[in-house]
Amino acid sequence: MASLPTVDDVARLAGVSRQTVSNVLNSPDIVRPETREKVQRSITELGYRPHASARRLRAGTSSTIGIRLDPISNGVSGAILDRYLHALTEAADARGMRVTLFVASDVEDEIRHYERLRDGADVDAFVLTATQYDDPRIEWLARERIPFVAFGRPWGAEDDDDPARLWVDVDGQAGVNQATRHLIGRGLTRIGYLGWPAGSGTGDDRRRGWETAMGERFGDLDLAALTTTAEEGVPNARIAIEQLFRAGTDLEGLVCASDSLALGAMMAVREAGFPHFPVIGFDNTPVASAVGLSSVDQRLGDVAAATLELLMGPDGRRVRPHGDAGDGPSHRLISPQLIVRRSSHLAPVEEAGAGPSGDHNGEKEQQ
Amino acid sequence: MASLPTVDDVARLAGVSRQTVSNVLNSPDIVRPETREKVQRSITELGYRPHASARRLRAGTSSTIGIRLDPISNGVSGAILDRYLHALTEAADARGMRVTLFVASDVEDEIRHYERLRDGADVDAFVLTATQYDDPRIEWLARERIPFVAFGRPWGAEDDDDPARLWVDVDGQAGVNQATRHLIGRGLTRIGYLGWPAGSGTGDDRRRGWETAMGERFGDLDLAALTTTAEEGVPNARIAIEQLFRAGTDLEGLVCASDSLALGAMMAVREAGFPHFPVIGFDNTPVASAVGLSSVDQRLGDVAAATLELLMGPDGRRVRPHGDAGDGPSHRLISPQLIVRRSSHLAPVEEAGAGPSGDHNGEKEQQ
Repeated sequence: MASLPTVDDVARLAGVSRQTVSNVLNSPDIVRPETREKVQRSITELGYRPHASARRLRAGTSSTIGIRLDPISNGVSGAILDRYLHALTEAADARGMRVTLFVASDVEDEIRHYERLRDGADVDAFVLTATQYDDPRIEWLARERIPFVAFGRPWGAEDDDDPARLWVDVDGQAGVNQATRHLIGRGLTRIGYLGWPAGSGTGDDRRRGWETAMGERFGDLDLAALTTTAEEGVPNARIAIEQLFRAGTDLEGLVCASDSLALGAMMAVREAGFPHFPVIGFDNTPVASAVGLSSVDQRLGDVAAATLELLMGPDGRRVRPHGDAGDGPSHRLISPQLIVRRSSHLAPVEEAGAGPSGDHNGEKEQQ
Repeated sequence: MASLPTVDDVARLAGVSRQTVSNVLNSPDIVRPETREKVQRSITELGYRPHASARRLRAGTSSTIGIRLDPISNGVSGAILDRYLHALTEAADARGMRVTLFVASDVEDEIRHYERLRDGADVDAFVLTATQYDDPRIEWLARERIPFVAFGRPWGAEDDDDPARLWVDVDGQAGVNQATRHLIGRGLTRIGYLGWPAGSGTGDDRRRGWETAMGERFGDLDLAALTTTAEEGVPNARIAIEQLFRAGTDLEGLVCASDSLALGAMMAVREAGFPHFPVIGFDNTPVASAVGLSSVDQRLGDVAAATLELLMGPDGRRVRPHGDAGDGPSHRLISPQLIVRRSSHLAPVEEAGAGPSGDHNGEKEQQ
């Protein structure tokens, strides 16, 4: 607070030196009783508070986790990181930690922010999101021996259980596999996959979930003929699926890499005249719940809890030094959960959540 | 950082006193050259950095704004505060400020957090959201003379231009008024309003926008017969509008207090067999853009910029003391902007954003 009284203010009011005030605060026994009382009266009168951040400096800990927050995104699936941020802030609060936000224009700028926050002892650790292949942020943090956890695997790293590179991630492959098997279980064969263009760790991983489920059940199917890609975004997906249907397709259902893609796909297939063509998304965003889209839920509460556990240990109240992952593995892979709603039904149904007593959250698919 | 070297480490390695290290850092001229070099070598060797937070303590400023972040919300419109948080973090960054998050279970708990962060000098100011009638947080912050800005008017306060109670808000009444006049301009008369139950400052304000637009144009209309309420949430709105249509209604269009309500209403009217019954929402969420719902945009970038301007002045780099609003008014009321999409058209249209070159963001309504 700019207007907070300082040690100097207390010293001035009490008519003593700065050092005497410091002695009263830190070694009261060495100060004469009448001087002590005078200083304490001034402290009370001014409302002076020994700064907690000064105490933290002495303790060498700021009780703060730093995380980059990007400018407003208008995407449906962009909100997934917002929901993780809520869960992380809540999990951090339970351990007496806070979360501090900064913005960065790119990965290099993000590293500059890390450096500045580290130099200021403003944070104890960082949480990274949106990891890339050979992520330079991870290499920088590991080299500088700064505690961090990546939400997202260190794609491209040779050793994915390196205690110097802690990470937590959602098992996208397992989630998409579950979604695909759900449609296989409903008797479908020609199940398509709408994914992002190849080259993103997350996207390639999710696509493999569909490939393995299809390959296991239909070994002789030409998978390349069943897959389409679109850049993230509702309109892109809509155009891609419109073109597919305009050209004529024998697809029977569609699993998508995100809710944005699934929503665009759903709009295109419904408008093409297929009211019960099953579509499944990924992320279980509020939009999925609102429009009755089946989707794979990332269990972000579990992701946040695992993030804190990797940083601080199972019950710790302080961030562990870099490279110390305790006895456990240095990563956590969270199993997501398919939420079934009417978008993946083959015939008209009354959605559970649409009735007066429904919670509109769909049904959890049993694994 | 728990592992950061301290002044004591530097002193020990250099074989000098703590005070000598401090002199090298703060008054190098009074230290003998050979001692100075020895200390500087130790500083370099250990990678010691004089703490920025210690400097901030001396300066009496933490360059940090505190804001409460609640646990994950599944609502469509809940994301509005997330989008404000992005805009605020970006606007703060441009002024060298950071944003720190905490969670609170209720208003009293939020005040306890304020107290703890204030006592620790961990923040320079707070931003409050979701203000209520006679908000106890505002009274507490004003009494404690802590700099703050409320996003949301101090509903119920007698003086809404009190420099001790800075606020920024979106003119919900103007936004709903604009939406209603848009439908009047399309030739409709029996335009309904779906709002939240009476008693919330924001909700009552938005409803007045519809009442004034309708009253001005159709003075003899029974407005009570045209309005319905539902608690926030897609399913609630859907049920309310389903019941309305089941009972038989002569409504010609609907303006809603939020995108969640509008989405539920849109689903209900479309399923009741009215593909071109106009519906307009409020908040311009990503969902509105994705499903082609006309909606009132809150201009959150402008809200965030106004928040920082009230806290720090037009070009300030520091938070102003409590009660100092500079020369300007102590509040900012941001005019929202209707974004027209196909949900408010009376006949089938090809949505601008649905084509290959469209940006899917709708058209701005000219005021």
